[in-house]
Amino acid sequence: MNLERMMHPKSVAIIGASSNPDKVGHIILQNYIDVGFSGKLYPVNINAEGDILGIKSYKRINDIKNAVDLAVIAVPAATVPSVLEECGRAGVKSAVVVSGGFAEVGEIRLEEELAGVAKKYSMPVLGPNCLGIMDPRARIDTLFLPTFKLDKPSIGGVSFVSQSGAVGSTILDLISHEGFGLARFISYGNATVIDEVDILNYLADDDDTKVIIFYLEGAKRGRDFIEIAKRTTLKKPVVIIKGGKTEEGAKAAQSHTASLAGSYQTYEAIFRQFGFTIANDLDELLFFGKIFDTQPLCRGNRIAIITNGGGTGVLATDGLYENGLQVAKLSSQSNAALRKAMPPIVNIRLPMDMAGDADDKRFNAALDIISNDPGVDAIMAIALFQTPGADSRVAASLIHYGTSMKKPMVVVSPGGSYTEVHKRMMESSGVPVYDSPETAAKALKALIDYSNYIDNAKRLYGSGKEHK
Amino acid sequence: MNLERMMHPKSVAIIGASSNPDKVGHIILQNYIDVGFSGKLYPVNINAEGDILGIKSYKRINDIKNAVDLAVIAVPAATVPSVLEECGRAGVKSAVVVSGGFAEVGEIRLEEELAGVAKKYSMPVLGPNCLGIMDPRARIDTLFLPTFKLDKPSIGGVSFVSQSGAVGSTILDLISHEGFGLARFISYGNATVIDEVDILNYLADDDDTKVIIFYLEGAKRGRDFIEIAKRTTLKKPVVIIKGGKTEEGAKAAQSHTASLAGSYQTYEAIFRQFGFTIANDLDELLFFGKIFDTQPLCRGNRIAIITNGGGTGVLATDGLYENGLQVAKLSSQSNAALRKAMPPIVNIRLPMDMAGDADDKRFNAALDIISNDPGVDAIMAIALFQTPGADSRVAASLIHYGTSMKKPMVVVSPGGSYTEVHKRMMESSGVPVYDSPETAAKALKALIDYSNYIDNAKRLYGSGKEHK
Repeated sequence: MNLERMMHPKSVAIIGASSNPDKVGHIILQNYIDVGFSGKLYPVNINAEGDILGIKSYKRINDIKNAVDLAVIAVPAATVPSVLEECGRAGVKSAVVVSGGFAEVGEIRLEEELAGVAKKYSMPVLGPNCLGIMDPRARIDTLFLPTFKLDKPSIGGVSFVSQSGAVGSTILDLISHEGFGLARFISYGNATVIDEVDILNYLADDDDTKVIIFYLEGAKRGRDFIEIAKRTTLKKPVVIIKGGKTEEGAKAAQSHTASLAGSYQTYEAIFRQFGFTIANDLDELLFFGKIFDTQPLCRGNRIAIITNGGGTGVLATDGLYENGLQVAKLSSQSNAALRKAMPPIVNIRLPMDMAGDADDKRFNAALDIISNDPGVDAIMAIALFQTPGADSRVAASLIHYGTSMKKPMVVVSPGGSYTEVHKRMMESSGVPVYDSPETAAKALKALIDYSNYIDNAKRLYGSGKEHK
Repeated sequence: MNLERMMHPKSVAIIGASSNPDKVGHIILQNYIDVGFSGKLYPVNINAEGDILGIKSYKRINDIKNAVDLAVIAVPAATVPSVLEECGRAGVKSAVVVSGGFAEVGEIRLEEELAGVAKKYSMPVLGPNCLGIMDPRARIDTLFLPTFKLDKPSIGGVSFVSQSGAVGSTILDLISHEGFGLARFISYGNATVIDEVDILNYLADDDDTKVIIFYLEGAKRGRDFIEIAKRTTLKKPVVIIKGGKTEEGAKAAQSHTASLAGSYQTYEAIFRQFGFTIANDLDELLFFGKIFDTQPLCRGNRIAIITNGGGTGVLATDGLYENGLQVAKLSSQSNAALRKAMPPIVNIRLPMDMAGDADDKRFNAALDIISNDPGVDAIMAIALFQTPGADSRVAASLIHYGTSMKKPMVVVSPGGSYTEVHKRMMESSGVPVYDSPETAAKALKALIDYSNYIDNAKRLYGSGKEHK
């Protein structure tokens, strides 16, 4: 299914557009205006008279004389099939149906009707029961949520796919708040026409998308899903969370997006075999997305831990070994250089506790030596900004090494307001920062597992274009 | 060991106090002034002339004519034993040694000397190599960290004990940032004189302390530790994280606070047998602390999930069953009442998805009915503030029910800036808010496990005063 017109429309009709600010169609039209969509906008409403939000409106889609690439449909469920029929007849190229009230509430016949119309006109239709698409590059925003309630993401390389609208909007808000850049957000709801296979197929080849994060309730086409999974993960990492892992969760998913859940064991086996990174909770979706978004692949599991607080070095060491990683051993040259660079009170053995008065000079010296040691595959730098020596110069040091060296680096900086400021400095420069050493260890493990998968998969399945 | 004078001193000498703002002794004296300590303050420095920070200073401790309850010692390690000796001779009642440079860097003899002096004078000594004590009620603050780098906690019921100073200051900052109230923070470093057993013993009987959270690297007195564990958890919950769980982590702990780590399996078995709540990472320490701090005990595992976003209901259901909990079944009366209160589009089966337009009226109705259902042991309310219906009236509804009903409630509200505002509203009113449904499920599980432990332990070991 070709999603190009839907993803990069030159003209958008909003059916159900309204001057009443409580209406979904109003919010969507306002969004398009707010984000500065550069194509043509056509508000459509059967009751429309004159302009809506200052834009000439139409009573019916076929009153529009020009071509319409995308219709965003926000009308009551019962009228959706006929509205879609009109779109088909008028030659509209694609549609997003945000309206709910279909299979998820038992209205299966209505959903079948919708599917029938889409098929008749070979029209790619997203939804129903979805939030649609947000794309800060193409300035597209079909989300019918009040703008002030969500932090809006900047342009970046993460694409986020969510069957659920609610999980979608929440994660989107978190992504933005955490400073991720977004390629596109796709909420696909009941997956009546366009499903996860079509979306992965599009994103696999989408150059704007560097990493995919995915909330899935159930995949309908098993064999196709496996094929597209294989193809996609060869090209870019996919972090996935499955809703409905337990039998009872699956039942809840059934009434939510009418998904066929299947056993999680089966899904998990497929996810693992084909290189997905599995997130066990919403938090991990972000934690793993963040390291893939910013760090190069990692071919080994020897991690150098440096810290300005000993206890966190202990927890970090536990975190590494609990995840099957190990603390790197430095060369004798590195050790000699560190011994010279660090004050006598510092025990230079990794995890190296540089002490609470460690400043940027100490961080610089350590990172300089360690990043050049061939026995180190990645660095975990713990910078506690509560300590006397840590200030924005330490953040600058971490940014310098984190963005210039070839090895992956993760930073651990838990804390309150003062720490937050520095965390944002680092994250906006592309250095992933975590709140706990254990989480940072999990993220490194995910990166290393995917890197190993890629190497093996390329031998097995042939090569794809590599992530980063 | 009697810690009363140390915890509630009427007079404090700061040895190593200085006019030089870079000196630890300066920061500590300034802290005491800043927090408004109401007792007598005596700056002591061998080089002192006249006042330090506007307070009359002394060259030696025995120049002070009045009784000194607590000496905070911040002088170079090598001089600590002789300074402590002077304190003993002068009749000082207790000491906190913040200086590092003892067993943790191999200076074992120096640490033994310190222990010898403490023993000679039967003086309770905290440290060395520690941050000491913070107590917002008693206005005590020995932390030698610049004030602006940490969010400072308000008065509350959580006591936080940390062997590590760095982990301590970090968690303290997080605790404050998350809005917890603090009873006292105790960082005890090398545990040369006062160890974890003494501290738990004190906190078990401390009425200000409702919940203990604990970062432990190693307990030196096994049998005593077990006895005090048993006694403490009967009175109040203890959430514990152990540094040095893995062999390699234990080695790192050895060089950090010179702890004898022992096998984690042994520790874990003891923790479980005697009712500790085990945190697997720093985050869980806070997540579990939060539910114990605010919620009553919970005698069953039947959880009612309500949500304004279906996907999160699915994840929450998974979270419950993965943790051995279950979704509650409502009575037919409750179901009838809900059917009447909710619009037709809402499927009232738990997890109940009240839809994205759910407002405070819908939350109120649901919470009113569900909180009175005898088949419900606790409530997980998911309020996604990204949705059109959720605003501060929804937060007010959750606060009302969360603080007035007898059953435990947890709220799940992940999100960015708009959500944060509402999260803070709820947390400052004593309603625990989590970022993911899976985490909320883990916290409920911890609460239920402890509640069951208490019931069993009372039968086995006799009764203590119950938490809440």
